[in-house]
Amino acid sequence: MKIAIIGLGLIGGSLAGDLTRLNQHQIIGISRRLTTCEKAKKLGIVHQSSTDLSLVQGCEIVIICTPIESTIPTLAQIIPYLSNTTVVTDVASVKAPIVREGKKLWHNFIGSHPMAGTAEQGIDAVQKNLFAHAPCVITAEDDEDRVKGALLRDLWQSVGCNILTTTAEIHDQAVAWISHLPVIISANLIYSCLQEKDRLVREFAQKIASSGFRDTSRVGGGNPELGLMMAKNNRDNLLANLRLYQAHLTTIINDVEAENWTKINDLLTITNQNRADFIK
Amino acid sequence: MKIAIIGLGLIGGSLAGDLTRLNQHQIIGISRRLTTCEKAKKLGIVHQSSTDLSLVQGCEIVIICTPIESTIPTLAQIIPYLSNTTVVTDVASVKAPIVREGKKLWHNFIGSHPMAGTAEQGIDAVQKNLFAHAPCVITAEDDEDRVKGALLRDLWQSVGCNILTTTAEIHDQAVAWISHLPVIISANLIYSCLQEKDRLVREFAQKIASSGFRDTSRVGGGNPELGLMMAKNNRDNLLANLRLYQAHLTTIINDVEAENWTKINDLLTITNQNRADFIK
Repeated sequence: MKIAIIGLGLIGGSLAGDLTRLNQHQIIGISRRLTTCEKAKKLGIVHQSSTDLSLVQGCEIVIICTPIESTIPTLAQIIPYLSNTTVVTDVASVKAPIVREGKKLWHNFIGSHPMAGTAEQGIDAVQKNLFAHAPCVITAEDDEDRVKGALLRDLWQSVGCNILTTTAEIHDQAVAWISHLPVIISANLIYSCLQEKDRLVREFAQKIASSGFRDTSRVGGGNPELGLMMAKNNRDNLLANLRLYQAHLTTIINDVEAENWTKINDLLTITNQNRADFIK
Repeated sequence: MKIAIIGLGLIGGSLAGDLTRLNQHQIIGISRRLTTCEKAKKLGIVHQSSTDLSLVQGCEIVIICTPIESTIPTLAQIIPYLSNTTVVTDVASVKAPIVREGKKLWHNFIGSHPMAGTAEQGIDAVQKNLFAHAPCVITAEDDEDRVKGALLRDLWQSVGCNILTTTAEIHDQAVAWISHLPVIISANLIYSCLQEKDRLVREFAQKIASSGFRDTSRVGGGNPELGLMMAKNNRDNLLANLRLYQAHLTTIINDVEAENWTKINDLLTITNQNRADFIK
């Protein structure tokens, strides 16, 4: 197949490389920057590379791997060059707003979310086998979408992904719980510790913090741009979850205050018994 | 030196073994249960073992390694057998209430908190070198305490601990921040996710949860008894920190709602830049 990948950063570049190495497709890499195109050719991760979006012409699949805010504007620009059967997808970590606008612009638009990545960005961060064993969500609002998604399932599977299919809305609600809410509560842990007014306590806390604090604070101390992007694009689901979290926290505070230790024991027993369902 | 260790679980038993293997002391292990005493002798982690608390007689150091709620009752029982110069310490993870009561009962009582452990408990969980490179806090309310603590510093250092000295109150406030608050906010994450009413969303969240969720939920899904014990014994400090955390969370929720993205960006930038101070 002829496949175009627009955006050659960590995700787009790594995907291009893995697909090129399969020796079954013709891979066209498109980037806004000529230097990135040249680097892609030098790295051998594409068969052809250019800054010219019209190169999507004749492609069976187009994968938009730009930053999330450029996904829909990029799709709008390539419409004139698409064949009627071309399937277009993206890789953004929030799906409902993208899929809603994408479907308005193109009848064969299906959302993807390969859940792979590192803390690094850009073409210099490109890795081989980045997608091995990573979950990849492919959105489907109905049976028609499921049929259209067949090509994409094969493509993501060919680079090692485990495919999951659901609606864009269920995807966004689920990632709000397991990815976006954790970023905020973890960041608030670090932030709250920093607000301790007694310098001796704050400094002693920093001295004795160990693996428990390290793990609980990890996602809240990560890349600020990624956290901000998640909050902006999945705002409503994140807000709903934050409010539920906040309400439960109030209950816990009241139970600790009232020394309802049976309730605290029940809480910690439930979480101890049910965490395994989230951990594979 | 002649050293008595009361309580031969993970901490007491491991400490007894490490000290016995140093070949410099006479180690007496005391347990409530005869079977534990016999196992300790068989494992070779003590020179002498008995259920009889009067064996602390003639010891230079006594280390109470019972569960936290038995620490002070045990101290009260051994007072008649102590020499005037005997230093008594404990290993509880909360220090102010123990040190306050301990000092009333015995003029040479100093608190210790070796920050080592595993998820296991009891004499069957005993490990060699459990304390290597672990921080060990030794409490000192004044200069007199610092002098009395010299023997204990040598002892914990001899099994590999890195010694930190501070007051019981600063210790408890600091562990509330970096250990006890994380347990509650992490448990509340798991609990809140479980309350999602839409079964499809809840199940999809469980399917796609990965390393971010795993790390953020780890301490909240741990041993319920330990979490409960921390909350009970360090209640006031935990409550104060939970309330500060709660207040900051309200600010964050309001900022997300009002789309004050600059504020959210500032928060995530501060946490990204300052987490390193807690992570060695």
